Amino acid sequence: MGTTKEVKKPKRRIMLIVAYDGTDYCGWQIQANGVSIEEVLTGAVEKVTGVRTTVYGASRTDAGVHALGNVAVFDTTCTIEGDMFARAVNTYLPDDIRVRASCEVPAGFHPRYGEILSDPVTIEGADGPKRPKAIKTYEYYVMNTTDIIPTERRTHWYLSYPLDLDQMRRAAKYLIGEHDFTSFCCPRTGVATRVRELTKIDITQEGDLITFHIEGSGFLMHMVRIIVGTLVRVGRGYYRPSRVLEILEAKDREEAGPTAPAHGLFLIGIDYPVFSTENTQQEDR
Amino acid sequence: MGTTKEVKKPKRRIMLIVAYDGTDYCGWQIQANGVSIEEVLTGAVEKVTGVRTTVYGASRTDAGVHALGNVAVFDTTCTIEGDMFARAVNTYLPDDIRVRASCEVPAGFHPRYGEILSDPVTIEGADGPKRPKAIKTYEYYVMNTTDIIPTERRTHWYLSYPLDLDQMRRAAKYLIGEHDFTSFCCPRTGVATRVRELTKIDITQEGDLITFHIEGSGFLMHMVRIIVGTLVRVGRGYYRPSRVLEILEAKDREEAGPTAPAHGLFLIGIDYPVFSTENTQQEDR
Repeated sequence: MGTTKEVKKPKRRIMLIVAYDGTDYCGWQIQANGVSIEEVLTGAVEKVTGVRTTVYGASRTDAGVHALGNVAVFDTTCTIEGDMFARAVNTYLPDDIRVRASCEVPAGFHPRYGEILSDPVTIEGADGPKRPKAIKTYEYYVMNTTDIIPTERRTHWYLSYPLDLDQMRRAAKYLIGEHDFTSFCCPRTGVATRVRELTKIDITQEGDLITFHIEGSGFLMHMVRIIVGTLVRVGRGYYRPSRVLEILEAKDREEAGPTAPAHGLFLIGIDYPVFSTENTQQEDR
Repeated sequence: MGTTKEVKKPKRRIMLIVAYDGTDYCGWQIQANGVSIEEVLTGAVEKVTGVRTTVYGASRTDAGVHALGNVAVFDTTCTIEGDMFARAVNTYLPDDIRVRASCEVPAGFHPRYGEILSDPVTIEGADGPKRPKAIKTYEYYVMNTTDIIPTERRTHWYLSYPLDLDQMRRAAKYLIGEHDFTSFCCPRTGVATRVRELTKIDITQEGDLITFHIEGSGFLMHMVRIIVGTLVRVGRGYYRPSRVLEILEAKDREEAGPTAPAHGLFLIGIDYPVFSTENTQQEDR
């Protein structure tokens, strides 16, 4: 008779698409001075798997910033089906944080870079093969009216003065592409390079609502909020559009406009080279 | 030489259009067990006028119900221009309560009935002249999806099961007109008659959002929420549409569906025979 051999359960990497109302949180990252999304999510994942695990987030959003599609991963030997983790984790979350979907991803997948480290994707670029980057989409909502609707105040920046959208659009064009965004970054950011690439800034209006839709492969601390604060100065007529180019070149935070408040900002989602967070049910590679 | 005669300043009635996020309030009416909209508004008006005054509200919304256009009046000898009270009172309000507009109204104007008591308006009806009534508009917002967006959760009722809009619309038709709404009313309501008139129920869908738009000349306690709770039972297939007629005829709260939660309900506005709250700047009669 053979002996029973214990089979070691394999580690799996689970991805969560996370939405939250950031109003009552000190931001994504665990901090001493308040309750963070990361902390609450880590606790809920532990309740499901029975094991304390690090939950890695794609975007460390600031205090008060909201998300429709932030991304987090964790490793587990738990055998729950990948798409069932969403429901399981939600059981232990307060209703201002929701896991919208979940799935199993390859072990090397990192939510910040979107690369499967052991098996990098390449695409044909003009200068030969290059590694595609994850694209993050943010939206910032301005209500351009004196008539404040209290139920909208937690998710919109109310501005009463008129804004010239065409001037803001002209200014935004200077920001598209790869630049050193030192002027649009909180000076206490501790990163090696402040070069980032913005791929799109659309500014649209519907009634009183002005939406800044911003896409890029990487964002520095406060970057979207300083961009919006600066574009609003242009829209108000305080800065001419070309001043944005001068601000970029100055590489000095003092040159840019104020940081727009956190509560108007939403992390909408992240598109990875291998899959979009808008469609998490597709097959893993 | 004549003596200086003190001129007594005349009393004026001021109307406020009030919006609020009801989440953190125990409702409109002053209560022992929580902070009410009425209490906070009365305090702000006192700070402006220097005198404690009763502030009469048109609609005593429940705890957690929101408003875009509730109406309140108070009397004052304060000489501030009618339309400037909005700004003055807002200075003393928290940002989840806002006065959207203000104006002076005739002394006999009552916000609940919309009548100028000393000088009632009449219109030609089929049976001779009749007094037109103020029409209140409520909207109730249902999000019909399993995918809960945390920033929408304070203002929408999330329902995950499919709802048949056509069946709900068929059922709603039975409620239009003048009826005894005892079955659609909280049993502890202390009113002389439970006959009310509903003039419109529109049910529309846009994406996941289902809007119940309900107009009528008077509403009983919890009436809109019990109507929505009952129509949702029809939409789910638990009640056939004609059951709504039987519920009306039963005059028994136990026969109707559950009370939909407060947080999906908005008092949109009130149209008075003499003026609409959507246009407060027009001349007084």
